[in-house]
Amino acid sequence: MMKRMDMLGRLATDNGKKMVLLVLDGVGGLPGPEGKTELEAAVTPNFDALATKSELGFLDMVDVGITPGSGPGHLSLFGYDPMEYAIGRGILEAMGVGAHVGPGDVCARGNFCTVTEDFTVVDRRAGRIATEKSALLVQTLSEAIKDIDGVQVRFSPGKEHRFVAVFSGDGLSEDVADADPQQDGRVMRWATPTSPKGKKMAEVANAFIRQVAEVLKGESPANGCLLRGFSSAPDIPHMSDLYKIKPVAVATYPMYKGLSKLVGMEVVEAGETLEQLFESLKRLWAQHDFFYLHVKYTDSRGEDGDFAEKTRVIEVVDGLLPRLLDLAPDVLAVTGDHSTPSVMSGHSWHPVPYLLASPFVRYGDSKRFTERECRVGAGYRMAGSKLIGLMLAHARRLEKFGA
Amino acid sequence: MMKRMDMLGRLATDNGKKMVLLVLDGVGGLPGPEGKTELEAAVTPNFDALATKSELGFLDMVDVGITPGSGPGHLSLFGYDPMEYAIGRGILEAMGVGAHVGPGDVCARGNFCTVTEDFTVVDRRAGRIATEKSALLVQTLSEAIKDIDGVQVRFSPGKEHRFVAVFSGDGLSEDVADADPQQDGRVMRWATPTSPKGKKMAEVANAFIRQVAEVLKGESPANGCLLRGFSSAPDIPHMSDLYKIKPVAVATYPMYKGLSKLVGMEVVEAGETLEQLFESLKRLWAQHDFFYLHVKYTDSRGEDGDFAEKTRVIEVVDGLLPRLLDLAPDVLAVTGDHSTPSVMSGHSWHPVPYLLASPFVRYGDSKRFTERECRVGAGYRMAGSKLIGLMLAHARRLEKFGA
Repeated sequence: MMKRMDMLGRLATDNGKKMVLLVLDGVGGLPGPEGKTELEAAVTPNFDALATKSELGFLDMVDVGITPGSGPGHLSLFGYDPMEYAIGRGILEAMGVGAHVGPGDVCARGNFCTVTEDFTVVDRRAGRIATEKSALLVQTLSEAIKDIDGVQVRFSPGKEHRFVAVFSGDGLSEDVADADPQQDGRVMRWATPTSPKGKKMAEVANAFIRQVAEVLKGESPANGCLLRGFSSAPDIPHMSDLYKIKPVAVATYPMYKGLSKLVGMEVVEAGETLEQLFESLKRLWAQHDFFYLHVKYTDSRGEDGDFAEKTRVIEVVDGLLPRLLDLAPDVLAVTGDHSTPSVMSGHSWHPVPYLLASPFVRYGDSKRFTERECRVGAGYRMAGSKLIGLMLAHARRLEKFGA
Repeated sequence: MMKRMDMLGRLATDNGKKMVLLVLDGVGGLPGPEGKTELEAAVTPNFDALATKSELGFLDMVDVGITPGSGPGHLSLFGYDPMEYAIGRGILEAMGVGAHVGPGDVCARGNFCTVTEDFTVVDRRAGRIATEKSALLVQTLSEAIKDIDGVQVRFSPGKEHRFVAVFSGDGLSEDVADADPQQDGRVMRWATPTSPKGKKMAEVANAFIRQVAEVLKGESPANGCLLRGFSSAPDIPHMSDLYKIKPVAVATYPMYKGLSKLVGMEVVEAGETLEQLFESLKRLWAQHDFFYLHVKYTDSRGEDGDFAEKTRVIEVVDGLLPRLLDLAPDVLAVTGDHSTPSVMSGHSWHPVPYLLASPFVRYGDSKRFTERECRVGAGYRMAGSKLIGLMLAHARRLEKFGA
């Protein structure tokens, strides 16, 4: 049986048409204090105008009732069935901080922490030390620890108390459970293999943690570390090869950049503010044909449970939309990687509204880009992983299947 | 995991109820000059009356965003997942012209062409010679070439410059690339195997092409041939066996007849005009219980980009509909094998509207058989390959699943 991804790969052709995937992270919501969702409460004249001439509907990123993490949610949007392609959190963070993870390497997310001499973990985040301090510690460690039992070690600093460690050597495996006691005040829980293949990596990880504590002995509060999310680079086909596109990721946060790299997108420094992100499209327009534009703050404010602020972020994006439309993309899709209803202060399983604009859409009855109006759009409801194929179709970048 | 097809096969029972599948090829459209689709622009009192008491919805023939060729589109309507069952163009044409392709045989589509002595292909279609001329050449060749290196050869004439060649012998395989330079004025590109299995067939094909040129040496403009679409008969279960039905195809064009034979339908000469096709149903009514009625011209006019004419064909069918309804089928499904929006002048990926009439439909809000009204029908949207099971269900020809 031919897989959808393989079929798209076989049919894809490069006709130069340009596609934009605008992801408002966690955009889907639930009715808030006044019975409206965040999308309904927001004043969005630009989205409204677009909605009346677009295909609207819903995406299930993983499956009905499944709440997606950001990784699976985005994988789905990029055309990968997240039930088939699983990507460890560690690998995402590693790629986000620019760490190279080659074939056979294993990476892990590190936390600087505060430990006692007998390895009781007093503070798992070492008081959330500043990013600058963390970078200095990483530099010290990089010079002190280069190799453990013939396994090469590389460090990359992250935000606050976080860093990434990449291990290169023979016989390593990601089959290792976190070296992390999970709660402050507990004795260290050392890394353990989850399969026989993980034995060597677990030993190296524990030796690594002891050496870090040795090197940082005089430091305070960060005098030790934890390692979590052991993972190796997944064998995932690149979007660029599959779909014959030149994709670029316009994102701020490391994890989204990391995931984009993993699926074969070019990742650029596009600025920190939403305005900078939208402006950078113009600069990148000529060299690329697929633009993944990621807006993080809809999710962040939803996770904060801040209905009004999530609503405001949507309004800010609506205000920036004309800059994107001025570039006249052949296809524009607007959606989220999952829902993050403010009233739930977290990700949820609710289908994610999507809007698809192209010259070849059928009409529905949608008047706005909201959950309620997506119900009467021309797009119904489908797996999130089907969206990219639909975008390629509307860009007329797919040949006919069969005679 | 039980496949749907196997489940239907297990549940199917013959109760004598009669089902009609009326396929308006390429019927789905997009808004045209006045903002209406072809189905909306057409005046269709008979379809309108039927729509108010039918289940309406949409079919995806292959998958979201995939534009189906006629082969995959029809396979889906006949209940076969076109991602699983692929059928070569050559085999479709062979069956369409009545050529028998047995197990192990390989067939190919032939083009008469004009070649120079050193095998430069001057005209790949030999000036599109008349069908009658082509038939005479095929007769000459049939007498002159019966066997190549122990492989038996059979010819069947086609329309204009086309014919079909069937090769029977040991060790043949369809793994052969076209013997066709693709453009006029190029030197011949000979057949090459695409896998080691295809070696013998490629050699036979090239010897065949040389012998044809030898036999036709004195002819003009058709003094050579090309061979394309090497394919053997697929191993596909018959509808008749699967669903315990006695299906018949009422179609004019070779490819649709060919496909119908392939899936186990009886294929009859039903005339050339739409009126003849509809009239022939009456004659066939007693002996069959599943009637596949194929209207080609909705697609042809759509491919021409002729919105008005596609609309007119729909109106002609609407005028003929009472003759079909007079036969009082227990179940009637009306749909297409894909969309062919006139504004795109070609097949498209858009879901195909369907209408299902039976005494057991739930009602929706559809007032007409149009894309817009299918959105508010009781049928939502589903894979095209599910339709036949739904028809069987409405004919009460499926037993309950499980106790």
